[in-house]
Amino acid sequence: MSTNDLNLNEKAKNVVEILKELHSGKSIEELKDKYGYVLSTISPFEIPLIEQQLVKEGVKIEEILKLCDLHVELFKDILLSREIKDVPNGHPLDLLLKENDLILKQSEVLAVYASALLKSQEESDAKNIVAKVKDVVLKLLSIKVHYRKIQMLVFPYLERRGITAPTRVLWGREDQARIKLRHLLEFIERLEKRFDPNLITEIGNRALDLAREISELVFRENRILYPTVQTLLSDGEWAAISSTAEKIGYIVETKGEKWSTDAKPILPYEADASLTREKVDLLPLEFRMMIASQGINPDSYVIKGSGDIDLDTGFLNIEEIKALFKALPLEITFANSDDRVKFFSESFLHKGFVRTKTIIGRRFEYCHPPRLESIVKKTVDEVKRESGYREFWTRIGDRVIRVLVVPVKNREGKYLGSVEIVEDLTEVVNNPEEVKKRIIVV
Amino acid sequence: MSTNDLNLNEKAKNVVEILKELHSGKSIEELKDKYGYVLSTISPFEIPLIEQQLVKEGVKIEEILKLCDLHVELFKDILLSREIKDVPNGHPLDLLLKENDLILKQSEVLAVYASALLKSQEESDAKNIVAKVKDVVLKLLSIKVHYRKIQMLVFPYLERRGITAPTRVLWGREDQARIKLRHLLEFIERLEKRFDPNLITEIGNRALDLAREISELVFRENRILYPTVQTLLSDGEWAAISSTAEKIGYIVETKGEKWSTDAKPILPYEADASLTREKVDLLPLEFRMMIASQGINPDSYVIKGSGDIDLDTGFLNIEEIKALFKALPLEITFANSDDRVKFFSESFLHKGFVRTKTIIGRRFEYCHPPRLESIVKKTVDEVKRESGYREFWTRIGDRVIRVLVVPVKNREGKYLGSVEIVEDLTEVVNNPEEVKKRIIVV
Repeated sequence: MSTNDLNLNEKAKNVVEILKELHSGKSIEELKDKYGYVLSTISPFEIPLIEQQLVKEGVKIEEILKLCDLHVELFKDILLSREIKDVPNGHPLDLLLKENDLILKQSEVLAVYASALLKSQEESDAKNIVAKVKDVVLKLLSIKVHYRKIQMLVFPYLERRGITAPTRVLWGREDQARIKLRHLLEFIERLEKRFDPNLITEIGNRALDLAREISELVFRENRILYPTVQTLLSDGEWAAISSTAEKIGYIVETKGEKWSTDAKPILPYEADASLTREKVDLLPLEFRMMIASQGINPDSYVIKGSGDIDLDTGFLNIEEIKALFKALPLEITFANSDDRVKFFSESFLHKGFVRTKTIIGRRFEYCHPPRLESIVKKTVDEVKRESGYREFWTRIGDRVIRVLVVPVKNREGKYLGSVEIVEDLTEVVNNPEEVKKRIIVV
Repeated sequence: MSTNDLNLNEKAKNVVEILKELHSGKSIEELKDKYGYVLSTISPFEIPLIEQQLVKEGVKIEEILKLCDLHVELFKDILLSREIKDVPNGHPLDLLLKENDLILKQSEVLAVYASALLKSQEESDAKNIVAKVKDVVLKLLSIKVHYRKIQMLVFPYLERRGITAPTRVLWGREDQARIKLRHLLEFIERLEKRFDPNLITEIGNRALDLAREISELVFRENRILYPTVQTLLSDGEWAAISSTAEKIGYIVETKGEKWSTDAKPILPYEADASLTREKVDLLPLEFRMMIASQGINPDSYVIKGSGDIDLDTGFLNIEEIKALFKALPLEITFANSDDRVKFFSESFLHKGFVRTKTIIGRRFEYCHPPRLESIVKKTVDEVKRESGYREFWTRIGDRVIRVLVVPVKNREGKYLGSVEIVEDLTEVVNNPEEVKKRIIVV
């Protein structure tokens, strides 16, 4: 038995005491007051080990699960004693921290069940515990909503400042965690099909490993990433993150947690990319070291060129708009609200029906043979009135062609016209099995 | 026997004389001189009837087929004595007339074989003749290239002038002819699978009917449509038709038949829609009657609005461009030649991968996890160097997603960037049989 194990054993005994108090109805806040010293000797990273110890000693899982809340609380205290503080309620950072509380707790629950699973003797016990493991894994899958906000909303502001190595590393770990979650789920599903004691060990070990990894990610974010972005990002940048984050959503309740600022939202491409020495000195050690070794090279690109048109989700000049329509795998014919052809595109990938510039201005229904005139008119009238689109399938020679008629509406929902979208989907319709073979889940 | 039949019998005898001369090597021009009077008594519309007569009398088909050239020649003479004349070599009208010569000849060959088929007694004879019928039918399928030029290039100029009834009627007939061609081919293919004397009669009658219909269309075009557009359309309008027609192509040789004009090409939406009384008086009777009964109501729409951008194949304002991207069944992310995200679109039909405005300006490869960074970079580098695109298949949850990476190039072939195109094709991949059931060939 190593010294560490001895310590853990002692600490585990103390934790059992705390558990008893929790069981008697005491709150974690009360316990923090009473067991202040005892708790201060326990690092948040020892909790999972203590939990495993308790599982070994036969403490009931339901009891141990209560420790998860304690773990999260201890973790927060550590953070409060460090860089991250004064985060307003509902601020993106506040919500990201709250998400991490939830993730940390779930990962710990996973660890507890994993330990119990590895210790289980009976098949029925194991099966019951695996069901619990599965529940937690399914919950943890939503972790991607948390990671996505970090990857898509937060990282671009760091990249703008020339900070890319830590963001790429962190994304890599988040990515690994998600892949491992998926693999774990696959093992569980295999076990559900056919019981196998070897799979039990595999699942237990994988779940333990995953729980550790996810906790570490929470730690890295809370201790390194968040203090960094809190130091660097302006209120305008947070305003942009805050409004954009709503599109992705949160895995915690956000009602009544509104944060607002008078600052104008600033997207990464609009952001001031400079990093002052004073700012750098305020950063966590890991970032200061990275910057010391690599220097600061802000990514001061300019994305909007002269002649660029602001299209809300980016900028395109006229040449790019023309070229983009040609690069699509489909061809469109747009008729305005008077049913007049106003524009058509031609794809260099797939040919649909021939259209020529002589049809610009033509009544849309006159672009079709008289036999189809009434159905074309009826279809356009329908999409004009209703919100849905219409789908048809036809052939051009031996090609299988999908024709969509879709209403074109502006942001306020006003009808601007209809678009006929013609796409050659022959290979997909004729060789779906080939397509399925090519599917790679990344 | 009706008087008409008597006449036909007499005329048929004369034609047999002419055939003998043709057989001896005389040219049609020579025969026209020699048999001037005899030929003048034969209307082009009697030729098919005479041909049927000759088939009945046992004249060899190879001989009768030579009459087809005579038919076309007689037809031309009739035309020359009427409205259409002075058409420059290579002018769109000249090429359309030449296409009609070919179509007329093919339809007549069809009629001859059809008559022979209906008269055939032996199964082996019938089969041989059906093979000939099939050859002609396959050739006649390219008739759509002729019709398409009329429907897409010529008609819009008439519609602009408020003339729509004759164009819709003519398109309807052209459409019917093409459908009948397709049906005839289906009957032939059924016969090829299993011989059936009833099918022989069916094919023979259908082929005869079709040959008559196609000849009539040639007649209507040459005698009514072409004189009308020759009278009405300006050189600028013909210039636009001429250059646009190249895109559709011709079914006759056009080399060395270049027609050019100094007039600036005029598309229908740019055309002067007014019809003067003097012009109307020059039109064929059918059009004068139509105009007399319905009046002249030029379709004087204006297609280009203020704020519209000229995109070569039509006009769109910024609101329409934004709305169109949303109406597509796919989502795109465009990175410029520096591999920076410049624009992304969001479809209201299908959701792909989440993108947010915070990625505008971001390095394209940084929008993906580090695990995929090298493949993303490699793919973009490949489409940058080569002209092709790359196709990948993946899943988002249970959705089957196609990802294309396509180079975006301007008209001169200069690389402007790459576009990632994400399309949800779940229903097509999972239910191809459903899709096939929905295919309607129109």
